[in-house]
Amino acid sequence: MKNYKKISVAHELRTELHDSLDLTGAEISINTLPAGASVPFVHSHRLNEEIYAVLDGTGNAVIDGENVGLKAGDWLRISPEAKRRFFASNDTALKYVCIQVKAGSLEGYTMTDAIV
Amino acid sequence: MKNYKKISVAHELRTELHDSLDLTGAEISINTLPAGASVPFVHSHRLNEEIYAVLDGTGNAVIDGENVGLKAGDWLRISPEAKRRFFASNDTALKYVCIQVKAGSLEGYTMTDAIV
Repeated sequence: MKNYKKISVAHELRTELHDSLDLTGAEISINTLPAGASVPFVHSHRLNEEIYAVLDGTGNAVIDGENVGLKAGDWLRISPEAKRRFFASNDTALKYVCIQVKAGSLEGYTMTDAIV
Repeated sequence: MKNYKKISVAHELRTELHDSLDLTGAEISINTLPAGASVPFVHSHRLNEEIYAVLDGTGNAVIDGENVGLKAGDWLRISPEAKRRFFASNDTALKYVCIQVKAGSLEGYTMTDAIV
């Protein structure tokens, strides 16, 4: 079995990578919220830290009742217990990546985990 | 202390997010390899699965001696033990995100980890 897997992701409203890439340390979704749309529920997590990367467009998150503006180039880390909801702005779609990882799971990284 | 942190990432050759976002389950870097350039070493990892997302440009990875073409929209998962090296093509820069997570660390995700 190969030590890697590659896929090409088309422009869809939501693409989930865990199963298609055989991920074992993260779930990653690529999302587009159309202009004026929102994720229709508030959620938090049991164990997972979420990291959001805004690829295109503008919008906002409401996190524990606080409004956080979002634009392309923004990166956002949210602790498991925070209550969150996402909104695209009224005039542009919001395209973003959401990375779920188990909070506290990382040990070494980069040069402390690499073998060069 | 707030349950989230946000930063805006400018266009630089390499930006590492672990410390600036207080990440605990991943390290994430945003990288630009100029046209014709390559990461100047082969590496593998002790514990970490790596996930690469190609944001822009074209290039290739050599993974365990096998050539893998890369273009915008590609996502690539690499197991810790694989020996890897990355190259931009000669005519375009390669912009990519690298996500490091501990292999096997994810428990539930999405609806099996969420509280709605």
